[in-house]
Amino acid sequence: MPGPLEGLKVIDLSWGLSAPYCTMMLCDLGAEIIKVERPLGGDFTRGNGPFIDGVSVYFESISRGKKSITLNLTTPKGKELLLRLVDTADVLVSNYVPGAMERLGLDYETLKARNPALIYATVSGFGQTGPYAQYPAFDVIVQAMGGIMSITGEPGGAPVRPGASIGDIQAGIFTAISILAALYERNQSGQGQAIDISMLDCQVATLENAFARYLIAGEVPTALGTRHPVSTPFQAFETKDGYVVVAIVGGVNDQWPLFCSAIGRLDLIDDPRYKTSYLRSVHYDELEPIMSAPMKQKTTREWLEDFRGLRIPCGPLNTIPQVASDPQILAREMIVEIENPKLGKIKMVGTPFHFSRTRPKVSRPAPSLGEHNQEVLGGFLGLTPEEMKSLKAEEVVA
Amino acid sequence: MPGPLEGLKVIDLSWGLSAPYCTMMLCDLGAEIIKVERPLGGDFTRGNGPFIDGVSVYFESISRGKKSITLNLTTPKGKELLLRLVDTADVLVSNYVPGAMERLGLDYETLKARNPALIYATVSGFGQTGPYAQYPAFDVIVQAMGGIMSITGEPGGAPVRPGASIGDIQAGIFTAISILAALYERNQSGQGQAIDISMLDCQVATLENAFARYLIAGEVPTALGTRHPVSTPFQAFETKDGYVVVAIVGGVNDQWPLFCSAIGRLDLIDDPRYKTSYLRSVHYDELEPIMSAPMKQKTTREWLEDFRGLRIPCGPLNTIPQVASDPQILAREMIVEIENPKLGKIKMVGTPFHFSRTRPKVSRPAPSLGEHNQEVLGGFLGLTPEEMKSLKAEEVVA
Repeated sequence: MPGPLEGLKVIDLSWGLSAPYCTMMLCDLGAEIIKVERPLGGDFTRGNGPFIDGVSVYFESISRGKKSITLNLTTPKGKELLLRLVDTADVLVSNYVPGAMERLGLDYETLKARNPALIYATVSGFGQTGPYAQYPAFDVIVQAMGGIMSITGEPGGAPVRPGASIGDIQAGIFTAISILAALYERNQSGQGQAIDISMLDCQVATLENAFARYLIAGEVPTALGTRHPVSTPFQAFETKDGYVVVAIVGGVNDQWPLFCSAIGRLDLIDDPRYKTSYLRSVHYDELEPIMSAPMKQKTTREWLEDFRGLRIPCGPLNTIPQVASDPQILAREMIVEIENPKLGKIKMVGTPFHFSRTRPKVSRPAPSLGEHNQEVLGGFLGLTPEEMKSLKAEEVVA
Repeated sequence: MPGPLEGLKVIDLSWGLSAPYCTMMLCDLGAEIIKVERPLGGDFTRGNGPFIDGVSVYFESISRGKKSITLNLTTPKGKELLLRLVDTADVLVSNYVPGAMERLGLDYETLKARNPALIYATVSGFGQTGPYAQYPAFDVIVQAMGGIMSITGEPGGAPVRPGASIGDIQAGIFTAISILAALYERNQSGQGQAIDISMLDCQVATLENAFARYLIAGEVPTALGTRHPVSTPFQAFETKDGYVVVAIVGGVNDQWPLFCSAIGRLDLIDDPRYKTSYLRSVHYDELEPIMSAPMKQKTTREWLEDFRGLRIPCGPLNTIPQVASDPQILAREMIVEIENPKLGKIKMVGTPFHFSRTRPKVSRPAPSLGEHNQEVLGGFLGLTPEEMKSLKAEEVVA
């Protein structure tokens, strides 16, 4: 069954991770992604290690299923071919530095004049407007500037970067939402529009709780190890052989009495200081050793059995290899195998999008540079073999 | 200008953060969100601190712009009213524990029989299928089980939870994408469908690089403080008075020579061990002190001036208060003011969705419990004042 975005055509002028993650999701959902790359080297992430037999595993995972064409957009012919492709497309995505699309003559107004239904989405470090618009940015820059690094780490310790590229990825996800919302609106108005996503904005948008506490209640959020600022217990505890994670939220009548019984501290149940998850957070310093000490007496597996018996939300703290072989992850098809022309069968992360009718399947490999020049430029645009040959000679395509 | 989802009607059977974050985004984009709450207390996050004058700032920020009605879904009349609302809706979102909707008689097949165009989206800790389907989960559980906590923290140190509720929030974002993709497909097929989003799946989907390295290259990702596993320098450095973040990515011909010149180490430029960002990551241990020592000689502001002059991507490491007053954040309208009936004007995070034609505006406060009973049940469903009165007497609505 094809995915729900079957038939959607996306011109993908992107590189790195943010916008490519957006088009990866659209591709997983069934859209046709035509990745337009520089003839010399293409997307720089083709050069990002680690490599297996010269293949970047990073690029392989982000670009699965996309089509690649090469075009030198600084030549009049390359630009003209791109414009002809845009005429046939629903969406264009770019994360070039603000100003670059304009310098190439590919600004929104120009493209809108040719294709008024086009949805023109840009992703940049700071957005197309504002005092930082021209500053370059990568993931760690916006993670730092957006505040999450100041609230990640040990209490009183050095700041820590969350271990995933959420500065890029969240911007990519928000771009996908914007594009799909604009498609919904286009279905009624017939008109496209421009979308301007800033990685920094997206960072701030996902820190809602930290900002709510500061902006409304005046609290300054800080790093708290593994725990939650306003829910307790909601953290990892060290066990005899590793860690176990427990989460109890809500007001009165939550699972706190069950947790007290599990750790053999029935005396805490009626203590007014610990009546709600929020009050327990306020009194965390005195409560922490009371909770932590008994947790070290059993193994993680024993605690999981105890807590699950009581329906207390809990789980192990997994390494990446443990996740990759977890029975739930496998049952959900979150690890898939793709046939790569150079490497044979390789595994990668599947798609979290589960639909009852139009379930997408991740199955096609990432393209080699310019692999679909013939299909796209020859097939879609109808260029003759002679024209293709002369474009190559002129280094318009690779 | 209304947002792009103007006219979209969503029945919101959700609580906590994951699905409510999804409907917050749909609401920000212009959809009408009818939040259906238990008559007694409603969504438990109304009881989540911190509070200002008894108002949960957490709830206030996640629920801005939504409508609230109270319905006791365990009564035949309450269920019948919900079914009548579903008949008029485009989308239903729920994050009740798997099985709960079925026990209420609100399973997908029942609702589909009444409204075949309905998009029925569920969010749960582990999804509706698989061995863990029935386990309860909250944010920190899936952050731990998905692997990110094992790769967040100081090298060799204890695991750390990223300071935002990305276990919930990323699931909410992916649910929004799924709903919008299903709406795109419905526009062609006329049919709705069921969507099954797992918080754990979403965690894994956003760790693409960590899994690519493990699954394809066999590397086991670990915690790295502030730095990136395969790009160097791509981290926070301590300065004379704080931190500065620098990011250099890509292969040869990147900005490494400029960075070397900025730190006064021209001798490193031609060192073959440091030729690419990936090679510098491989030789990180020897390179780290060479880079870190000179960084401590100047202030953050001085380094930002130096690096920006060289067009090296860089930034400060901001606290939440610093972010909230950052000129770029203010220019992008990422901090908005909303008139709250109890608190007066309060500030919260705006929306990162910037559209050229249908720019949404975050302006309406969160609803009090059952605030829209009359508008929705009286107005949309046409219940008479007598019917409303008797429903209240029977405790079907609050």
